[in-house]
Amino acid sequence: MNLLGTREPEIYGSQTLDEVNARITELAGELGLEVEFFQSNHEGALIDRIHDARGDFDAIVINPAGLTTTSVALRDAIASVKLPAVEVHLSNIHAREEFRRESVLAPVALGQITGFGAESYLLALRAAAAYIEGKGKDG
Amino acid sequence: MNLLGTREPEIYGSQTLDEVNARITELAGELGLEVEFFQSNHEGALIDRIHDARGDFDAIVINPAGLTTTSVALRDAIASVKLPAVEVHLSNIHAREEFRRESVLAPVALGQITGFGAESYLLALRAAAAYIEGKGKDG
Amino acid sequence: MNLLGTREPEIYGSQTLDEVNARITELAGELGLEVEFFQSNHEGALIDRIHDARGDFDAIVINPAGLTTTSVALRDAIASVKLPAVEVHLSNIHAREEFRRESVLAPVALGQITGFGAESYLLALRAAAAYIEGKGKDG
Amino acid sequence: MNLLGTREPEIYGSQTLDEVNARITELAGELGLEVEFFQSNHEGALIDRIHDARGDFDAIVINPAGLTTTSVALRDAIASVKLPAVEVHLSNIHAREEFRRESVLAPVALGQITGFGAESYLLALRAAAAYIEGKGKDG
Amino acid sequence: MNLLGTREPEIYGSQTLDEVNARITELAGELGLEVEFFQSNHEGALIDRIHDARGDFDAIVINPAGLTTTSVALRDAIASVKLPAVEVHLSNIHAREEFRRESVLAPVALGQITGFGAESYLLALRAAAAYIEGKGKDG
Amino acid sequence: MNLLGTREPEIYGSQTLDEVNARITELAGELGLEVEFFQSNHEGALIDRIHDARGDFDAIVINPAGLTTTSVALRDAIASVKLPAVEVHLSNIHAREEFRRESVLAPVALGQITGFGAESYLLALRAAAAYIEGKGKDG
Amino acid sequence: MNLLGTREPEIYGSQTLDEVNARITELAGELGLEVEFFQSNHEGALIDRIHDARGDFDAIVINPAGLTTTSVALRDAIASVKLPAVEVHLSNIHAREEFRRESVLAPVALGQITGFGAESYLLALRAAAAYIEGKGKDG
Amino acid sequence: MNLLGTREPEIYGSQTLDEVNARITELAGELGLEVEFFQSNHEGALIDRIHDARGDFDAIVINPAGLTTTSVALRDAIASVKLPAVEVHLSNIHAREEFRRESVLAPVALGQITGFGAESYLLALRAAAAYIEGKGKDG
Amino acid sequence: MNLLGTREPEIYGSQTLDEVNARITELAGELGLEVEFFQSNHEGALIDRIHDARGDFDAIVINPAGLTTTSVALRDAIASVKLPAVEVHLSNIHAREEFRRESVLAPVALGQITGFGAESYLLALRAAAAYIEGKGKDG
Amino acid sequence: MNLLGTREPEIYGSQTLDEVNARITELAGELGLEVEFFQSNHEGALIDRIHDARGDFDAIVINPAGLTTTSVALRDAIASVKLPAVEVHLSNIHAREEFRRESVLAPVALGQITGFGAESYLLALRAAAAYIEGKGKDG
Amino acid sequence: MNLLGTREPEIYGSQTLDEVNARITELAGELGLEVEFFQSNHEGALIDRIHDARGDFDAIVINPAGLTTTSVALRDAIASVKLPAVEVHLSNIHAREEFRRESVLAPVALGQITGFGAESYLLALRAAAAYIEGKGKDG
Amino acid sequence: MNLLGTREPEIYGSQTLDEVNARITELAGELGLEVEFFQSNHEGALIDRIHDARGDFDAIVINPAGLTTTSVALRDAIASVKLPAVEVHLSNIHAREEFRRESVLAPVALGQITGFGAESYLLALRAAAAYIEGKGKDG
Repeated sequence: MNLLGTREPEIYGSQTLDEVNARITELAGELGLEVEFFQSNHEGALIDRIHDARGDFDAIVINPAGLTTTSVALRDAIASVKLPAVEVHLSNIHAREEFRRESVLAPVALGQITGFGAESYLLALRAAAAYIEGKGKDG
Repeated sequence: MNLLGTREPEIYGSQTLDEVNARITELAGELGLEVEFFQSNHEGALIDRIHDARGDFDAIVINPAGLTTTSVALRDAIASVKLPAVEVHLSNIHAREEFRRESVLAPVALGQITGFGAESYLLALRAAAAYIEGKGKDG
Repeated sequence: MNLLGTREPEIYGSQTLDEVNARITELAGELGLEVEFFQSNHEGALIDRIHDARGDFDAIVINPAGLTTTSVALRDAIASVKLPAVEVHLSNIHAREEFRRESVLAPVALGQITGFGAESYLLALRAAAAYIEGKGKDG
Repeated sequence: MNLLGTREPEIYGSQTLDEVNARITELAGELGLEVEFFQSNHEGALIDRIHDARGDFDAIVINPAGLTTTSVALRDAIASVKLPAVEVHLSNIHAREEFRRESVLAPVALGQITGFGAESYLLALRAAAAYIEGKGKDG
Repeated sequence: MNLLGTREPEIYGSQTLDEVNARITELAGELGLEVEFFQSNHEGALIDRIHDARGDFDAIVINPAGLTTTSVALRDAIASVKLPAVEVHLSNIHAREEFRRESVLAPVALGQITGFGAESYLLALRAAAAYIEGKGKDG
Repeated sequence: MNLLGTREPEIYGSQTLDEVNARITELAGELGLEVEFFQSNHEGALIDRIHDARGDFDAIVINPAGLTTTSVALRDAIASVKLPAVEVHLSNIHAREEFRRESVLAPVALGQITGFGAESYLLALRAAAAYIEGKGKDG
Repeated sequence: MNLLGTREPEIYGSQTLDEVNARITELAGELGLEVEFFQSNHEGALIDRIHDARGDFDAIVINPAGLTTTSVALRDAIASVKLPAVEVHLSNIHAREEFRRESVLAPVALGQITGFGAESYLLALRAAAAYIEGKGKDG
Repeated sequence: MNLLGTREPEIYGSQTLDEVNARITELAGELGLEVEFFQSNHEGALIDRIHDARGDFDAIVINPAGLTTTSVALRDAIASVKLPAVEVHLSNIHAREEFRRESVLAPVALGQITGFGAESYLLALRAAAAYIEGKGKDG
Repeated sequence: MNLLGTREPEIYGSQTLDEVNARITELAGELGLEVEFFQSNHEGALIDRIHDARGDFDAIVINPAGLTTTSVALRDAIASVKLPAVEVHLSNIHAREEFRRESVLAPVALGQITGFGAESYLLALRAAAAYIEGKGKDG
Repeated sequence: MNLLGTREPEIYGSQTLDEVNARITELAGELGLEVEFFQSNHEGALIDRIHDARGDFDAIVINPAGLTTTSVALRDAIASVKLPAVEVHLSNIHAREEFRRESVLAPVALGQITGFGAESYLLALRAAAAYIEGKGKDG
Repeated sequence: MNLLGTREPEIYGSQTLDEVNARITELAGELGLEVEFFQSNHEGALIDRIHDARGDFDAIVINPAGLTTTSVALRDAIASVKLPAVEVHLSNIHAREEFRRESVLAPVALGQITGFGAESYLLALRAAAAYIEGKGKDG
Repeated sequence: MNLLGTREPEIYGSQTLDEVNARITELAGELGLEVEFFQSNHEGALIDRIHDARGDFDAIVINPAGLTTTSVALRDAIASVKLPAVEVHLSNIHAREEFRRESVLAPVALGQITGFGAESYLLALRAAAAYIEGKGKDG
């Protein structure tokens, strides 16, 4: 399992990034998954990482933050590796500025989870896990 | 916890509606929650049910299906009861027809979970539970 | 005189709904009018009520709330009974979200009164009364 | 064969609704069909009726009137029962206000007949009959 | 009765154009009508034919195919001869690409029949016949 | 109380402007208010008058007529004096040309009354009076 | 005959404003008309002048220059005096910036002449004269 | 001088086409011009005629009627022959349906005259004559 | 191989049309292809020619010039013959007026070559040849 | 000659990237050109490479892939180095999702070649070569 | 140097208008410039003042406030006098309501300074001074 | 003070980049500020640099060049560090292509300075300095 993201500034209220990562790792363990983290503000680096994920990973959880509404390149990368991708947003992007609502990634993602703070990552992990176990789509 | 929805025809592949409800009830039990189900194709009935939810419930999980993009009345009802609402879609609405993407409810919801089949309900239940426990937003 | 409406959640600050209705009834009496109240969250019920109004009523005062911007069916009902209709909004819909501004009912209404809280109903009653007395349009 | 509709106020010039229904029943007999009528101003009631039609009917003729341009829920109901549906409008919706032109139902209907008054129903009946007899699409 | 059209490539599944014309002629005979066929890919030729129809014909049935959404000149020709025109499409134009939905001819036509294959022509013939007999609009 | 306006040509059917002003003055007296009239076709003059109103007046009733949809300068003037303003239109602007519907002033006004002829002024006076007496918003 | 206009800066290449006026006056004489000139950069002054034109003039020739695309107030003034108005532009507004093309005045004008430099005024004078003589519309 | 046009149906109230042509020929004579008429409903024929005009003519007067808003091909033909073209419309296209307002030809024309019935042709002739004499643009 | 086109006025700088055709014929010979030229300003003639191409040709090279952005009929003709079509533009249509950018033909063409003057035709010939040889799409 | 590009995932059906590059190098040799390849998913790296190309190269062939519709920065880089640039797309971008059609680079490119798979690169090379030899634009 | 403006209500926090003017005059002195102030809410008066500025002034600093987004007339006046104009806004118009962002004046101005309170005027003065000294554009 | 930017190709007429930087450094000295320069064509590098600025800098001056209208990620970075940012453009972006006008950064910036060549940087420095000294917003 692959966890990517750009830095989303408005978050991590009472928890540090380390705590969030620890909770993600812990839940992954419970679900019998291994996760790798990758964070970058470089669209190209994220794309390179996605391309490299093919073969080694079963799913991608991605928080595209500021690239959400513009990065067709990121979308094409996700579509090309043919891995199930769960798009995550900590804030509810549909309750913010109008231009933030339409993700260019969402049409090639498995699904989108938005609005639950760091909990969004945990839900995404579960969603990916359920999908991998074959429970996702036939539910 | 309150679970509302209109009938979403394209789903419930290998599972019957009863199985889905059973899984929801089971997870609710694990999370220490009680849930009530309400399904109707009548917008007015859904609104009445939401109004009645005030006081008796801690959160709403709602699948607005065909009312998602048009029902300002449903949005106003959700906003007026001031309960955290998790919007659920079984299919990934962002990967379907363009007109399905912009939910009028989402701006007044806590968050949105879309694309994971019946698993979406379970994730929504967890999201609501986490929020109630105060883990949601400060994560 | 016919008074219809859906429940508009954001209002009735210091007054209860009963007080508002009492003030409306009192003013109706002063103006020599009888009024009937009808409230429903069901678009179909409102339409049925409007259809039944033909013959028995001289005017309609309607607060369409969440149905304002979408219900072409309500508009067609108002247009078909050929009664003067006064559209009422307690809040100033033109000062809220952009999507609330364009009422689909307004083009078939006599006029629109918006922004004066419960006082809007009393003004609407006066507007309808003036119209019935033939003072409205030739003023 | 199932005939649904909301009340379309601007019609039935010299004919009463009963006369129209009688003509429809008569033509159905000629075509060797049985028809059932269903009229409601409640979107939910129309949707429930459509859902119930599955299995018992071969086709749906529907006049969505004021719900034409907004009811995604009605569209989803039609799509889900997988019955051929003929959309009917008594007036020519393309010659009226701009907002009436784009039916949200039409993309999931077999076809649309608009502008011929009550005759539209008879044409729709013939269209559905021809389709059922396998003459429709291969013509 | 006048039958115009441009060649609509996607049709005539199991029937040849001749068979379709034969069925149209046969139905016209049953309805006591005479029909003339005119097919051209030249917008100007269609317009000339429409202008010449004035006086000699009672109605026009037209399949504008690829000219549907752009030919204001065809629209003006139809409007100028003041004959009732029935617009026909073999496929359901409302279920195809978005740009095909809005016919520039429809606002000046009597009505539109779309989606029933070659059967569409027969329905259009009946619609025109009914209109001529004075049954169309007062139904 | 301040009454401003540009000349609205389509009105004053059976009443002269003087009669209308007389009725306004009379109602003001009944309500215990004093009113001042100001009419100009010069946007700048209206703005100057609004700026001068600060301190001396409790409310503004304004009929912006042809400046309704374009005058951001008038809007800014109203917003800057921080007086409650009631926007008045004699005709129902929502039933006229599309471009007349969206008032640039309305978002900074207390409310809008539209469609009741000269009666609109009297209703506006009452609305302002009710607001000043503290009955407006808490109703 | 009334000639109004705002100063249109980009013109009067080889001719002075006086020469243009002289040519207009001369042509007016030939056509048996009297003309009055009025130029102002004040929208309000133009509107006042139009209102005053009622009764004393048979037609208006107006060059609205920079007010062309925005002044609904000017449009309403022209519509209210019910005099035939010829809209004139020295440059071809349809060949300039996109935003200059749609005149808000044109829908209430008799017609529009654009693109012929100062000659535009002379053509407008002839157009108005022909209209007054009853040659305009029945031509 | 070249006069082109498609048939514009809504015109020629009290005058026959022959009378209009006679008046045009007469005025041409007064202005020392020769004119040739060309009328066709075939876009291609109009384009061919325009291409042939190069060299033999000094100006084009064109009434594009139903081709006005769509024919980029006609526009390109006019632009390519580099002759001054005066666009003529008998009715005021800016006062009709919204879609008629924006001529695709106008940006490559010398100017546009619209709304004066058959008189429009005479004005266009004068405009072209003035331009040829070098009075047009430097006025 | 079929070569169609309308006359594109802005081109053929230093080369005559004959020279261009000669170069095309020469290259066709080198590639082992035969070409036929067809030029018309009549949309209908181009469509007729395309329909006739079925069976006799392996590919179409088409320069739609002024018909590019509007001719749905041409698009439908190309789609119906099911021949690979290469769309050619001598100028770079994406660097000209905004309205020229979106070709209605392109979605049914094999590809588009734009901006290389007469060389565009030669490139299109090569593209078609490569496609026919099965090198095109699997490259 | 400079060849840039981002990785375009949907291509290279039966050919490996190496084969494609080999064919490009071979054709370059035939045309008497030297080419350099540069591939990156980093917009900044592509821009740096373009800036460095000034002076050393005669032309740029660029496949912007996912950056096509958004990268104004890439456009500005191409425009600033003032080298002829040929934009290449392997798939026909005009036949895919609507949002892919409008390249922000195209207006500053020499031309665009789209839809011919890897052959597109070879055509682009020829287009650039022809342009350099002075055959491009005067053809 | 010419300083124009309409009254911008939201500003002048801790400074009076006099203090601002004093600071402007002082800085002008330092820069070796003379300035004249002109404030009006009358668009016509501002235009007249700009026309009069030709010849006597080297530059214009203008705060168009509420006229920013609508006054084409003001834009035309600035363009016609051919003086460098610096557009000033005290608040950051790009951070306010969407409709305030697009200034119709900006395209004919030298540049725009927005968001720095009264300091904006001082910066504008420096910008104009630098431009006059020939430092502006070649910097 | 932090100075960021991407390379803006169209500038630095008679001055080299070094000269511009020297002038900036000199002015910074006069104003008692220290500045650091950072230039990159990599959006990610600019974002990293902004994140690192928190704590060490009092303000940011940024020229986003080609990233201006698309980089939501840059906007989010600026918003997250909560430093006053002055957006600078050497050319007047409001006088160039339409798509360049709406900066996605501007709504989170302190203000914007556009159109004064390299002088824009000096003005931005002064604006930031004034803001830091507390003179900015209360002016």
